[in-house]
Amino acid sequence: MTSPDPATRPTVRLKPKANARALRHGFPWAYDNEVVTDRRTRRIAPGSLAVLEDDKRNPLGLVAVNPGSRILCRMLDPDPGAVIDRDWFAARLDRALALRVQVFGAPFYRLVHAEADGLPGVVIDRFGDTCVIQPNAAWAERLLEPLTEALVDATGIDTVLKNASGRARAPEGLDDRGAVLRGQAPDGPVQVHMNGAVYMADLTGGQKTGLFYDQRANHAFAAGLVRPGARVLDVFCHVGGFALAMLTAGAGNALGVDGSAPALALAAQGAQASGHADRFETRQGDAFETLAALAADGQQFDVVICDPPAFAPNRQALEAGLRAYERIARLAAPLVAPDGYLGLCSCSHAADLSRFRDASARGIGRAGRRAQLIHTGFAGPDHPQLPQLAESGYLKAVFFRL
Amino acid sequence: MTSPDPATRPTVRLKPKANARALRHGFPWAYDNEVVTDRRTRRIAPGSLAVLEDDKRNPLGLVAVNPGSRILCRMLDPDPGAVIDRDWFAARLDRALALRVQVFGAPFYRLVHAEADGLPGVVIDRFGDTCVIQPNAAWAERLLEPLTEALVDATGIDTVLKNASGRARAPEGLDDRGAVLRGQAPDGPVQVHMNGAVYMADLTGGQKTGLFYDQRANHAFAAGLVRPGARVLDVFCHVGGFALAMLTAGAGNALGVDGSAPALALAAQGAQASGHADRFETRQGDAFETLAALAADGQQFDVVICDPPAFAPNRQALEAGLRAYERIARLAAPLVAPDGYLGLCSCSHAADLSRFRDASARGIGRAGRRAQLIHTGFAGPDHPQLPQLAESGYLKAVFFRL
Repeated sequence: MTSPDPATRPTVRLKPKANARALRHGFPWAYDNEVVTDRRTRRIAPGSLAVLEDDKRNPLGLVAVNPGSRILCRMLDPDPGAVIDRDWFAARLDRALALRVQVFGAPFYRLVHAEADGLPGVVIDRFGDTCVIQPNAAWAERLLEPLTEALVDATGIDTVLKNASGRARAPEGLDDRGAVLRGQAPDGPVQVHMNGAVYMADLTGGQKTGLFYDQRANHAFAAGLVRPGARVLDVFCHVGGFALAMLTAGAGNALGVDGSAPALALAAQGAQASGHADRFETRQGDAFETLAALAADGQQFDVVICDPPAFAPNRQALEAGLRAYERIARLAAPLVAPDGYLGLCSCSHAADLSRFRDASARGIGRAGRRAQLIHTGFAGPDHPQLPQLAESGYLKAVFFRL
Repeated sequence: MTSPDPATRPTVRLKPKANARALRHGFPWAYDNEVVTDRRTRRIAPGSLAVLEDDKRNPLGLVAVNPGSRILCRMLDPDPGAVIDRDWFAARLDRALALRVQVFGAPFYRLVHAEADGLPGVVIDRFGDTCVIQPNAAWAERLLEPLTEALVDATGIDTVLKNASGRARAPEGLDDRGAVLRGQAPDGPVQVHMNGAVYMADLTGGQKTGLFYDQRANHAFAAGLVRPGARVLDVFCHVGGFALAMLTAGAGNALGVDGSAPALALAAQGAQASGHADRFETRQGDAFETLAALAADGQQFDVVICDPPAFAPNRQALEAGLRAYERIARLAAPLVAPDGYLGLCSCSHAADLSRFRDASARGIGRAGRRAQLIHTGFAGPDHPQLPQLAESGYLKAVFFRL
């Protein structure tokens, strides 16, 4: 399906109070309370293209409209007459690809990070010759075919999968059925090369799109903290992100803890593929309980990493989330050997860096340990941000020496 | 000179309103308005050791006192009876050294970063076999001899210089006379190896202690943005920090701009030592004027870096400082080729990350360019912070793709 004829596009208008200037300067959204939602607007099919005008009828650009979503308009192009076809997608994909090729040595990265790459609501992860698209907005679902065509053109890959598990899809009125868009679904986990280690990613059944590329630079920093023979602990290890990077850097042994048996199985396979199977152990269980049990057992590690799921995904959950981060830090600190390192991560939008860092430091203090903060890291450069949305940068990693 | 006998140490007492709990948990200072400043306290010689007590006469630890300073007490040791001698310094230096040896491959780094390394007000930079000490607090000036002895023991270096140019010294009542504490002052700039490049540092006449180690990781990130043959511009280049790293990474040519002729001469010598003399040009002049002149000349670069001095060193200067950062971004953005990169740095305490980033993005927008924020970096791990003081982290680097 291609974009409708520009001449017949509906028009959507901003209310006088809306911030038209921000939209002109690159802010990517108009919210439902900023747009005149008359009957005509409410009838626009989700994912349709429309021309957005300011309250004086000056065109602001071409938007994708979803009358049922809080983000009612997503800016696609400042040119209201732009044709959203294979060529349009190709130009955006080429630009996104150029950044990743520049900063990474191998074709394993987030290729498209939604708004910041000019494709609102669209996430594409690349795993060598396979890409996984997450069309998390209605417009992208409607235009999935030209997007897929352009993706194959731009990258030369042979397999394209659709992952429909994103939580943003339901509010967009989209279902959760994945699909194979090109080629054949891999019949098992695929190998991902990152920081010298080999990870196994399950592209059809895993969390997110099978691997967390956003932590790559933080994995590398943790690997730099490992002296030969070090004992390391990776809590909420998923497929072994930190543990395998640290084993590759020379750790003597690593323990990976996670609640998910399939994730731990992939981590073990990754350790095998990286040549570290004999130095990697896994333990399935609740992270809080496992941390407490390891402490009761008197165990200590030279590097401890805790990379939990979002404890504070929204403002309502902020206070409880900060208490959970503090608790993680309090339980993890006793496991850090003297002069060892503790890396704590948060992927909570609502907990900003300052609050997360303070909660972490408080937990360390309550464990009776003193700390130096030696590094703060964010998501890597394959997760660019629009400067206008940078405050919401979700991933933070703080590294302490205890 | 050694520390006075613990038995004869004076006592300094906190007022009831002071935050004794924070001091017990690692906050390193007591301010003049938190301390009972009776006549006895006011008569304590600057840099003397004393026992700090809370308002109920419970000892909090051993502090260095300077009755003339806003930071009246600096916590040296939670043990009020600690003896501050060569062994005491050795323990702190060993611990500081272990971190640097772990994270860096060669002996070029900030070895001691003041409070966070347990030596309040003391900065020590290492340049191979030479260390430069900045004793920026009165206590350290008094105990410079055992510190120097311990430093030579811990590192095995042969040359120790004292740099007395720190702005914090005057408020501590200290003079600005440098000295050679061990060995001989080098008779010219010394070579510093960092990110594969060779820098020239003037340890006796230069800014700070001759080189800015804090930017190392940001230099490395900029180097990763360079494609073979790229044209790069380094404004406020000092001794060539970003430019030489980018040339080493394969840039075709680099232009370094600075107001200081001696700094540019060192940068040129560094380019020579790095083997890039034929690809490095310098231009002495005002950065704002030079940026405007390059734009008027229609020049463009694939990577542009601006690393100015602190425009907002304190709260009073904040608004003017933010306008200066915005202006730098506005003048630099037109010089960035399409899909090129712009790295902007701030070493202003008063301008936090969010404000600095917003000012930078505003400047880019005013230049009519759109940007992706691809990376945020801070000072490297040889500049650790106390978590309690982390909010004041001064160095920020934001990298945009335009």
